[in-house]
Amino acid sequence: MESDHYNDPVVIGGCSVPVRVSRKSKPGLTTVNVGGIPIGSETVAIIAGPCAVENPHQLLETAKYVKEYGAVILRGGAFKPRSSPYNFQGLGEEGVRMLREAGKATGLPIVTEVMDTRQVAFVAENADMLQVGSRNMHNYPLLKEVGLTRKPILLKRGMMATLEEFLLAAEYILNQGNEQVVLCERGIRTFEPTTRNTLDLSAVPMLKHLTHLPVIVDPSHGTGHRWMVPTMAKAAVAAGADGLIIEVHYRPEEALCDGYQSLSPDEFSLLMAGLRKVANAVGRQIYQPPEHV
Amino acid sequence: MESDHYNDPVVIGGCSVPVRVSRKSKPGLTTVNVGGIPIGSETVAIIAGPCAVENPHQLLETAKYVKEYGAVILRGGAFKPRSSPYNFQGLGEEGVRMLREAGKATGLPIVTEVMDTRQVAFVAENADMLQVGSRNMHNYPLLKEVGLTRKPILLKRGMMATLEEFLLAAEYILNQGNEQVVLCERGIRTFEPTTRNTLDLSAVPMLKHLTHLPVIVDPSHGTGHRWMVPTMAKAAVAAGADGLIIEVHYRPEEALCDGYQSLSPDEFSLLMAGLRKVANAVGRQIYQPPEHV
Amino acid sequence: MESDHYNDPVVIGGCSVPVRVSRKSKPGLTTVNVGGIPIGSETVAIIAGPCAVENPHQLLETAKYVKEYGAVILRGGAFKPRSSPYNFQGLGEEGVRMLREAGKATGLPIVTEVMDTRQVAFVAENADMLQVGSRNMHNYPLLKEVGLTRKPILLKRGMMATLEEFLLAAEYILNQGNEQVVLCERGIRTFEPTTRNTLDLSAVPMLKHLTHLPVIVDPSHGTGHRWMVPTMAKAAVAAGADGLIIEVHYRPEEALCDGYQSLSPDEFSLLMAGLRKVANAVGRQIYQPPEHV
Amino acid sequence: MESDHYNDPVVIGGCSVPVRVSRKSKPGLTTVNVGGIPIGSETVAIIAGPCAVENPHQLLETAKYVKEYGAVILRGGAFKPRSSPYNFQGLGEEGVRMLREAGKATGLPIVTEVMDTRQVAFVAENADMLQVGSRNMHNYPLLKEVGLTRKPILLKRGMMATLEEFLLAAEYILNQGNEQVVLCERGIRTFEPTTRNTLDLSAVPMLKHLTHLPVIVDPSHGTGHRWMVPTMAKAAVAAGADGLIIEVHYRPEEALCDGYQSLSPDEFSLLMAGLRKVANAVGRQIYQPPEHV
Repeated sequence: MESDHYNDPVVIGGCSVPVRVSRKSKPGLTTVNVGGIPIGSETVAIIAGPCAVENPHQLLETAKYVKEYGAVILRGGAFKPRSSPYNFQGLGEEGVRMLREAGKATGLPIVTEVMDTRQVAFVAENADMLQVGSRNMHNYPLLKEVGLTRKPILLKRGMMATLEEFLLAAEYILNQGNEQVVLCERGIRTFEPTTRNTLDLSAVPMLKHLTHLPVIVDPSHGTGHRWMVPTMAKAAVAAGADGLIIEVHYRPEEALCDGYQSLSPDEFSLLMAGLRKVANAVGRQIYQPPEHV
Repeated sequence: MESDHYNDPVVIGGCSVPVRVSRKSKPGLTTVNVGGIPIGSETVAIIAGPCAVENPHQLLETAKYVKEYGAVILRGGAFKPRSSPYNFQGLGEEGVRMLREAGKATGLPIVTEVMDTRQVAFVAENADMLQVGSRNMHNYPLLKEVGLTRKPILLKRGMMATLEEFLLAAEYILNQGNEQVVLCERGIRTFEPTTRNTLDLSAVPMLKHLTHLPVIVDPSHGTGHRWMVPTMAKAAVAAGADGLIIEVHYRPEEALCDGYQSLSPDEFSLLMAGLRKVANAVGRQIYQPPEHV
Repeated sequence: MESDHYNDPVVIGGCSVPVRVSRKSKPGLTTVNVGGIPIGSETVAIIAGPCAVENPHQLLETAKYVKEYGAVILRGGAFKPRSSPYNFQGLGEEGVRMLREAGKATGLPIVTEVMDTRQVAFVAENADMLQVGSRNMHNYPLLKEVGLTRKPILLKRGMMATLEEFLLAAEYILNQGNEQVVLCERGIRTFEPTTRNTLDLSAVPMLKHLTHLPVIVDPSHGTGHRWMVPTMAKAAVAAGADGLIIEVHYRPEEALCDGYQSLSPDEFSLLMAGLRKVANAVGRQIYQPPEHV
Repeated sequence: MESDHYNDPVVIGGCSVPVRVSRKSKPGLTTVNVGGIPIGSETVAIIAGPCAVENPHQLLETAKYVKEYGAVILRGGAFKPRSSPYNFQGLGEEGVRMLREAGKATGLPIVTEVMDTRQVAFVAENADMLQVGSRNMHNYPLLKEVGLTRKPILLKRGMMATLEEFLLAAEYILNQGNEQVVLCERGIRTFEPTTRNTLDLSAVPMLKHLTHLPVIVDPSHGTGHRWMVPTMAKAAVAAGADGLIIEVHYRPEEALCDGYQSLSPDEFSLLMAGLRKVANAVGRQIYQPPEHV
């Protein structure tokens, strides 16, 4: 692959943008296909599920609820990046298999995080989409490894990454030949302590201005408060997000991680109704698979 | 006034909130009345106008446009806080008088910034609402002085202020007996360089959770990009803002300051149509004075 | 005053520097004379005293100690900028008078903060140096007002001000004809919670690279921990600081404010011995008035 | 390994500290032994070398110089984490071998970065110390993998990491049974643009207050300016650092990366002389191997 033409970034609106991800590198916008579900088209895709895969029952119950209320992709963590070595580290490969089963049972494509280059092959075989989390946005060997798969990648913004660094991380993946990348704003670190992170919704229009890749928002990690998730989810759709990834647990109070920011099925159902209105108000629609019509 | 009962802040959702501004200090929410226009009711109030008052013609033309398209309060800077002493510092008292004339001519109440305790009496006599800007949020003598007037105060969040500090600044005003305070999120300073500030829309639901005061958003300073203002204005309304303050100039390319983030009348008109839809989608309405109905 | 030649900043090492404060605007470095004490010469000046003036006894006792151990300027707050309206707000003019008396009794020049344009004349009459605090670094009317006095100004960096903004604030003062300005790094706001602020010691060599004005450091507010002050004070001198401003209280545990970051006289005495060694190691000396030699 | 006793962190001075790294977990301080060179004793260890290994000649020339002037460990990057995929990515295993040869030729132990779990075994075989860089501080699989080796680990603070998170990252390594960990402050990300990062020297006394592990400082990445490195290196020693890691290149102007922040041999020599004086001023000595005495 000749990289020569790609050394000099493109400049858009004063910002330096890597060539392959830049909006100038191709005529239209990229739509990422996750097991049949489009992200980045005119519709808005809702990804939902628990923070962590805990056991088959918890997962399947949650999966059924989120599908019933309108989610089109199932999320769930099996390899969990935890600040403390003494926290629950996830079920690993067993968790990925449970996720695959829950995906089959409900017909939902699945997305799960990969943290180690050595996990990539296994996860790529078993999941429909691979997530590179916030803490690994600067993990270049991992970016290269997922770039070599032909699976869609959900790339989360580092908690203190500039948008230029975010786009450079995506460029690492595209540079390996994989253009199926979805960018996810999930909150940045600031001095403000009342929210877990500061959700930077301006990143949505700015990224869509600079790149052809779809942009989604994670209001769960972005706020860290269950009660704030619906409001910020609606704001994200109003800001032009191509999708949302939302933590839902069939029993949030029993969750092994992030219960305080996970919606219950009822809360999720209510939110979906609200999201449809906001999406319509800005000329879009929440994506529904054909069979639901 | 006995301050004794007020020394210990109230705790709401884990946050320390000063007593007088806290949601627990009174039964309902505060509606601030700006020359007949309510801020903080079920409706959403749109404040618009130029960054700086430049001359009577520029101001009146802009004022007519913003009124026609749905703004209900006119903004315009006469005392301008500028980073450099060599930048245009505003027209001062003369500018306030021009603003008063434009307000009379259009029937719009006016809001303008006050930077010095010595200006407060004059501005309070001539304007319907006094703004304390971001750079003066920690200016306690100024907060006390505007607290002694009986005019509504538009208090902008410091670019480096936590929400607790923001509420403490408001508490300074309420502690002088003036409860007519509107809080304004206008972007905070982060490491991200592509936007002028990082608009912290999570501050809207969080502040409304903690205080009875109305909360509005300034998408112009929050983004620093004209093209991004409409998107973030809609996101702000979806996030629950009780109003917006938007820079509009009848000829942005000729503006003496902030032209790059000021909307033209046409752009403002288009935005207002979009805002009405988003407001409806979240169960609210853009405020319109009775005579317009 | 013709400002025309000053509109365009000077560029030094890639940084934009306002003309009057820039190192290119005059041949040597500025030495600020505070009641006979030089700041900015080859020596290092130590300013010390309590956070707040509380009463004549507390002040005089503290003043005697800090003089005995080597401080050459006495600090003490009379007009106090406090985050909460319910905190002790300082003794105001009475406090300034107490400070003047303590200065006379010990022969130390005094520095105290001014927060309101209306206080400037009084403080300028009674103090040897006026401080503009961190929260007022962007208070342009105040900067202009102190610029009209002929007193030395101690200008503290805003807690989230870039060095360019800091220098622009100084430029406001110089632009009024007052070149007697000392810059003070006192910690900036970051995401790190274990220290009150993050002391940015790199600002010392960078400012000295860009401007002819002297640069001092406040390790008390910069760290917020009494036990950390001596270490960071030494680091500041090693970084090239022209002086230090240190909170000392004759009985820290009884202090009305900032006791947790105030040194006791014994701790201050010990620190001074350490500072002399570090100053010598970097080719400088802690300033001692002639009569002490 | 029973982790049960380790779930609850220790509290020191109000900070939550993981058990194994906490100062309360063992009687004295940890000294890390890097190929015979102690880090964390009463002496200060200087690590120096080029940003990247470029070729045998560049490396050997640089290694000879830094040894002659007093460095006791040789650094050099072979696996390079670069923001852009189009930048020089390092020589990989070949670079590690060159480094090993240069280490043998000069008698200096070597330290080099490892970015991928799959590289750990090879690097552990060939280097005396493994570096986990700033971008990988949150890379938990990598932390676990290096924790399984019995090599000393140089762990750099993430550019966005709180000290608590930094200590938790170290805890991951200790939890695998490897206590030979050196912590390195290398600058954090803030809003200030004139320096590459903001070197947080307060982190040195704070970390030494909380943990038994040694703490060193990287003034090269911390400032990003060659001319500022010597000043901040001295400040770091005054702040109590147990060592420094400094970028030196025998011809900085020809360096393939970070030349703008690399010292020339002459500059490094001059700095070493200055460091000895500052170390003495704070009661310490720059480490010299016995044969040099």
